[in-house]
Amino acid sequence: MVKEETVKPIKGGTILSPLGYKAGGLHTGLRYAKKDFGVIYSEKPAQCGAVYTQSHFQAAPLKVTQESISHSHTLQAIVVNSAIANACTGEQGLRDAYQTREWTAERFQIPEEYVAVASTGVIGEWLPMDKVKKGCSDIQVEAGPESAESFQQAILTTDTIEKSSCYQVMIDGKTVTIGGCAKGSGMIHPNMATMLGFITTDATISSDVLQNALKTAIDQSFNQITVDGETSTNDMVISLANGMVEHEALHENHPDWTHFQKGLTLVCEDLAKQIARDGEGATKLVEVNVTGAPSHQDANILAKKIVGSNLVKTALFGGDPNWGRIVGAMGHSGVELIPHQCDIRIGDTLVFSKGTPQPFNEEEVSGYMQAEHVSISVSLQSGKGFGKAWGCDLTYDYVKINASYRT
Amino acid sequence: MVKEETVKPIKGGTILSPLGYKAGGLHTGLRYAKKDFGVIYSEKPAQCGAVYTQSHFQAAPLKVTQESISHSHTLQAIVVNSAIANACTGEQGLRDAYQTREWTAERFQIPEEYVAVASTGVIGEWLPMDKVKKGCSDIQVEAGPESAESFQQAILTTDTIEKSSCYQVMIDGKTVTIGGCAKGSGMIHPNMATMLGFITTDATISSDVLQNALKTAIDQSFNQITVDGETSTNDMVISLANGMVEHEALHENHPDWTHFQKGLTLVCEDLAKQIARDGEGATKLVEVNVTGAPSHQDANILAKKIVGSNLVKTALFGGDPNWGRIVGAMGHSGVELIPHQCDIRIGDTLVFSKGTPQPFNEEEVSGYMQAEHVSISVSLQSGKGFGKAWGCDLTYDYVKINASYRT
Repeated sequence: MVKEETVKPIKGGTILSPLGYKAGGLHTGLRYAKKDFGVIYSEKPAQCGAVYTQSHFQAAPLKVTQESISHSHTLQAIVVNSAIANACTGEQGLRDAYQTREWTAERFQIPEEYVAVASTGVIGEWLPMDKVKKGCSDIQVEAGPESAESFQQAILTTDTIEKSSCYQVMIDGKTVTIGGCAKGSGMIHPNMATMLGFITTDATISSDVLQNALKTAIDQSFNQITVDGETSTNDMVISLANGMVEHEALHENHPDWTHFQKGLTLVCEDLAKQIARDGEGATKLVEVNVTGAPSHQDANILAKKIVGSNLVKTALFGGDPNWGRIVGAMGHSGVELIPHQCDIRIGDTLVFSKGTPQPFNEEEVSGYMQAEHVSISVSLQSGKGFGKAWGCDLTYDYVKINASYRT
Repeated sequence: MVKEETVKPIKGGTILSPLGYKAGGLHTGLRYAKKDFGVIYSEKPAQCGAVYTQSHFQAAPLKVTQESISHSHTLQAIVVNSAIANACTGEQGLRDAYQTREWTAERFQIPEEYVAVASTGVIGEWLPMDKVKKGCSDIQVEAGPESAESFQQAILTTDTIEKSSCYQVMIDGKTVTIGGCAKGSGMIHPNMATMLGFITTDATISSDVLQNALKTAIDQSFNQITVDGETSTNDMVISLANGMVEHEALHENHPDWTHFQKGLTLVCEDLAKQIARDGEGATKLVEVNVTGAPSHQDANILAKKIVGSNLVKTALFGGDPNWGRIVGAMGHSGVELIPHQCDIRIGDTLVFSKGTPQPFNEEEVSGYMQAEHVSISVSLQSGKGFGKAWGCDLTYDYVKINASYRT
């Protein structure tokens, strides 16, 4: 177990809370009036890890970022634009992403391979490169919370809130900070593409160890949220570690390894929950806990299936304690389960146990479901696997946002 | 190829169009005022095939039906109730389903094992057996379209229309009739469970051959529709063949085999499309055609993924020719594809070709998408597999129907 005080949340902390990072955001004309272009910059070249969408239609900037990282697993700047995803844009789109990388490298006088590129917005449109060029030459990066906020704003599309998180952990008796920010509201927006996440830390860690830690964190966070079951062309999470805090390089046998892994996972979980809560049209955050599954993987699959069910989501919107829909989602998740061993709870109320409906106060449970944070728990009693997933309700506004014409 | 005239649709045909079948429906008090109890009866014991839900939470009546069929693969009556699904009802539910079978067998003076039981409605409630008993003793079965209609009405829940289909095919120069009816509107309703389908024919065919033919037909029809991606606890399709038309028993090498298979598949496809069109809150039927896939299975998976995407469904509701969402759904279907070889058409309009957006008249395509039947075609150019799937749009009314409290 990790002690509370060794992994602590930093209220108001951002991607600029770790030592040695700067950022900025500006309006370069891709969106009508809002900020649409931003950069995160590390004073020192940083070790990095990254995880990308599994979509076959991977957007151009992701290809360029992968090439940058494969060069020496080192990044010093991340350039991001919103409004246009540069996805499904063919050869021209790829050239545009390379050009963006080149201009950013020139601006900061760093090697091209030290630059990652990310885009989010409309699929199938080309970037107006005159505006991107202006963004690259005008962008200023600074330290401090205002600069972090400026960057956070520049990466939003249909999001209604900025998303950030920060934890500090003790490594070799020194304070290491992990900050993060993200955007995402539907897995694909009206026609917007993307969930993006950026994590900074001043820890000393090599890229391969960081990559594994990031993968572990993401499997329990970003990969366990669903707004509408869609996977975008541009999903990407990048993590930078610039080693500004000097300690014995982190690895899995380091005595404080669990502190770091825990902190990183909590930052990711925090951001993931903020994305789920900000799901298109959502009125509440839903958490599904599964225990007693044959394996952790089974538990995660089942949790995500329940939280992603349209019928469970509409019941949550309507405050209907209709556990038949939870059963419905469980029945075809692909996870082996024995119906007469399953228990289902809405909040603390047992509604279904060992294959049989349980008497409960429907009004009370319906009242509980009106809250802004609703939890559903399922116990399979067929193993030791456990897992969680997060999502939101399905509302009129989800249909409204997504049925309205793009323009 | 099967000639048109050897497999022809019979307008207004029903489950009672084949020789030797009777049916009826009545109100026994499970629903407030509408018919809620029905029986299909064959004058002769009929060979049968059946396909059941893949849900782990299979409802009690399905277990009893499977037991009946396993006895001698022969059925003479199917008893159906709506309003209560008798699913997730434990040992009591199973006893109730057996009791229903027993009463029906007594009423028609046939062996218990000749009776199939089906239920559809609310999950997690027990059947009021006094009402079921009254239904079993009062039910009258007759020939003729009014009796078919009476049965069709008795099996509905949130459906807005009755669903029936009929084809005739030539076997050994004789006319064989295949009739069908179905119910279903969401895979699971507000808390209603089920898609039910009943197919009758006067063909001479053994149960094992019929079972294979039914499986083939269902894979291309009922298994290729999705309203909301859910699988219910009560889904079941039963097919009866009473051999009232005497011809050489059908088998896969019979010269007219393709006529029968084609007719059976068309009846299933017809009913499946009626269910998709009647999807909860739907304003239109959507058909997705996939060609050039590595295999037929891949094509079917991809077609169903596209037609089931919430974002594609909301775009169809809004008349937004937003092919980025089709790409989004294709990208994470699990089917291998090469982005720069893919073409996408909405109706006849090419909107995406070989990895690049195509110029098109958005107003015109948006206009096309307002129709009651919209088609999307995808070509992968990476094989000879083809497949189709059907669904509907996602509307405010879907949320309304499913968010409202059960009572």
